[in-house]
Amino acid sequence: MNSNQPYETLDPQDWEKMRTLAHQMIDDSIDYLADVAERPVWQPVPEAVAATFKTPVPDQPADPAEVYDEFLTNIFPYSMGTIHPRFWAWYMGNGTIMGALADLMASVMNPNMGGGNHAASLVEIQVLNWMKQVTGFPEEASGLLVSGGSMANLVGLTIARNTLAGVDVRRQGIQSMAKKLTVYASTEVHSSNQKAVELLGLGSDCLRKIPVNADYTINLQALRDSIDQDLRSGFQPICIIATSGTVNTGAIDDLPAIADLCDEYGIWFHVDGAIGAIAMLSDTVREQLTGIERAHSIALDLHKWMHVPFEAGCVLVRDEKAHHDSFALTPEYLLKAERGLASGPAWFSEYGIQLSRSFRALKVWMTLKEHGTQRLGRMISRNVDQAQYLGQLIENSANLELIAPIGLDIVCYRFNPGDKSEEALNDLNREILLELQEQGIAAPSSTILSDRYCIRVAIANHRSRYEDFDVLVETAIRIGHSILA
Amino acid sequence: MNSNQPYETLDPQDWEKMRTLAHQMIDDSIDYLADVAERPVWQPVPEAVAATFKTPVPDQPADPAEVYDEFLTNIFPYSMGTIHPRFWAWYMGNGTIMGALADLMASVMNPNMGGGNHAASLVEIQVLNWMKQVTGFPEEASGLLVSGGSMANLVGLTIARNTLAGVDVRRQGIQSMAKKLTVYASTEVHSSNQKAVELLGLGSDCLRKIPVNADYTINLQALRDSIDQDLRSGFQPICIIATSGTVNTGAIDDLPAIADLCDEYGIWFHVDGAIGAIAMLSDTVREQLTGIERAHSIALDLHKWMHVPFEAGCVLVRDEKAHHDSFALTPEYLLKAERGLASGPAWFSEYGIQLSRSFRALKVWMTLKEHGTQRLGRMISRNVDQAQYLGQLIENSANLELIAPIGLDIVCYRFNPGDKSEEALNDLNREILLELQEQGIAAPSSTILSDRYCIRVAIANHRSRYEDFDVLVETAIRIGHSILA
Repeated sequence: MNSNQPYETLDPQDWEKMRTLAHQMIDDSIDYLADVAERPVWQPVPEAVAATFKTPVPDQPADPAEVYDEFLTNIFPYSMGTIHPRFWAWYMGNGTIMGALADLMASVMNPNMGGGNHAASLVEIQVLNWMKQVTGFPEEASGLLVSGGSMANLVGLTIARNTLAGVDVRRQGIQSMAKKLTVYASTEVHSSNQKAVELLGLGSDCLRKIPVNADYTINLQALRDSIDQDLRSGFQPICIIATSGTVNTGAIDDLPAIADLCDEYGIWFHVDGAIGAIAMLSDTVREQLTGIERAHSIALDLHKWMHVPFEAGCVLVRDEKAHHDSFALTPEYLLKAERGLASGPAWFSEYGIQLSRSFRALKVWMTLKEHGTQRLGRMISRNVDQAQYLGQLIENSANLELIAPIGLDIVCYRFNPGDKSEEALNDLNREILLELQEQGIAAPSSTILSDRYCIRVAIANHRSRYEDFDVLVETAIRIGHSILA
Repeated sequence: MNSNQPYETLDPQDWEKMRTLAHQMIDDSIDYLADVAERPVWQPVPEAVAATFKTPVPDQPADPAEVYDEFLTNIFPYSMGTIHPRFWAWYMGNGTIMGALADLMASVMNPNMGGGNHAASLVEIQVLNWMKQVTGFPEEASGLLVSGGSMANLVGLTIARNTLAGVDVRRQGIQSMAKKLTVYASTEVHSSNQKAVELLGLGSDCLRKIPVNADYTINLQALRDSIDQDLRSGFQPICIIATSGTVNTGAIDDLPAIADLCDEYGIWFHVDGAIGAIAMLSDTVREQLTGIERAHSIALDLHKWMHVPFEAGCVLVRDEKAHHDSFALTPEYLLKAERGLASGPAWFSEYGIQLSRSFRALKVWMTLKEHGTQRLGRMISRNVDQAQYLGQLIENSANLELIAPIGLDIVCYRFNPGDKSEEALNDLNREILLELQEQGIAAPSSTILSDRYCIRVAIANHRSRYEDFDVLVETAIRIGHSILA
């Protein structure tokens, strides 16, 4: 059948031509990263370039070299800028060349990390064990690499719901429950937790957002009062979400006190550590995270302050059985075997939402092997020090003011010439931020604290030098005055 | 500050050494893929190798070349085997070298596809538009690239729940609803849909598993009866999940009839097309998928029959507003802007669970550019033809029998010498499968149909040649007889 025709596959028709092209990609990648500091942090996509993405789905093959040329011309130059030493927007990592190469090798091997007996499974198990060691979690805890903090929070909250609802949630659902389930977090809780509560069917009304103190940590008395009030009103509290590293200001909730409260009320202690938990690697920050080892579940992001390329998150769960009970489902086509491909130590699909999963463990493994915990920790410590350095620059500038205490590596400030209304200040600082980005100088993002728009500098950046903050401050002041003039 | 010390980052201390190493990785990758047919499809991880993954988290840096050597020795040779021409287990794609290189370039750029104004956003928009063109969906529909079918089904079912519950589910939750929500699918529905229903708080009791016909498609009368019964009993039906490509046998539910039923009852029509929807690319299969264009939501997997490396799934949603209403949440730290980095056409985080997202769109874009829809479609058509070819080989072999009708590219058969009990046949075929894998000849998986264990060959493989199925059949018979002897 068809055997007299040349055999068509999706492999290159000429492997040596593909080899040459792939070597070109390596050279371009190395140059791109080695020179990044010389380029603008960001530039808009020109309209003519944007127009090239309007073409219909191609029906005929194209030469791989032409496809790559199109990438080089229309995509590569118009990056988000996360790799740049002056990218401080939202909260992201830079990535590394070794992390990117790990993604190459992972996709060449192309294993499916749902489960099975192959070396990649052992890599993921090892990485999870390493994360337990880093956070002080017990060896018998379970975990899973996930896409990021959003998914890690969702997994943790799912287990909390299923474990503490008091009914068989997976079979019966929560519709027939007499009592409504409630979850507690501060007003600074990351939006992904609210999305998780919504997805789980609990409703955001049942996510109690507790006021914060002046340092943006959760107010413990208000937290206790809210739980007590709910108990009196017939609700069923199931979980407190502590945040270690709030997104606005890097505040770390009082973890030991929240652990005590969870013990006292018999409810789940989830730590959203997407921003700060990995700072357990830092000798200067670790102490602030005391209590994280008491959590029932921890969400970590490794594509943030550990600089693994997107996506790499991790959830750790103290009670392996509760974790497995919330997600395991083994239909007849996924039966395990004692030997062969379907044997093996790890069926990660039984610990999360995904069945097919990529080999993201490799880039985490290679990152930890290449750099070790101490260097990774030094990068974190330095960013915290740089946040204080930036704070000093702001304090020393007549026209700049801090808008919140500096938590971890996050600095919120604004330009304030002293004679403007709050509304005018908001408009002015909005424009300063846009011009910082548009001039390609720096890419902070923004937030709003007590109705005040501020420029928010989140320094999860292994490439940032101290002088980059001098540049930021000088330029922000220059732009501010030029707008006023 | 610290400025007199050498500046430590996570970049290579010597870019040229890293360049040399990266070129080595390219050569190793090309050789690995070009020679794959010469190697065993699978081999177990030796105990001595497995033992290397027990070491504690490294605290000191290592030379990148040494880390790579460890990968080459302990990981690369012990792959799952998905890239091999005789890998037919579960349901996976092979990947391609260009897909893997796209993952490299995506991770070098390292954008965060949560949103923002940069070229990668335009790539994902274009890919989504292409998927709408492929499935016959309207231009104004929305969509999202996700990790795979599990997540695509979860997104579709979340929108179904939120849109049809009749209350503000995101705010109020579903606990206080008077009527229980019900979802319908056949007994052959993929487990990820049950996991989604459980996650959403509906409970698997409310996922009505409807019996199938002899061809493993959903029984339409039983489906209608179940809905009517539920309506009489005070349940609130919200969604029918049609499967296009069941995991056991590749059966395609009657999509037009289910679309009509959904219209009649005013409920959501979700198509789990993780296995088969992308066969819209195939001139020989497309007609069987008629009706898919009427769905409210479709789950597709691009890391299966389109051979993009893991992970790459896609969900398409007819009603963009319903999609956005189910997932959008914009806190103060994610405010959009009219200009700059935080402007731009696409905030993908408002259409799904993840906030941080990788640039998986690039490998999909490059795959479609490199091969075009027609070649990708020919690969699918050939796999369907190969399934029929294998079916013929089985029919022509005295000791082999088909256990189910062949749907799409999935063949379920067993070795049956004719004088064994059902239980003995199950044990015998279990052993045949293990030996096929352990001898490195072929990697089908297994399933159980009507209590009969069968060898299941799922041919989503662009590298499979017709003679590979000759090898499978000859070897299975040889192993069967040698076990009996």
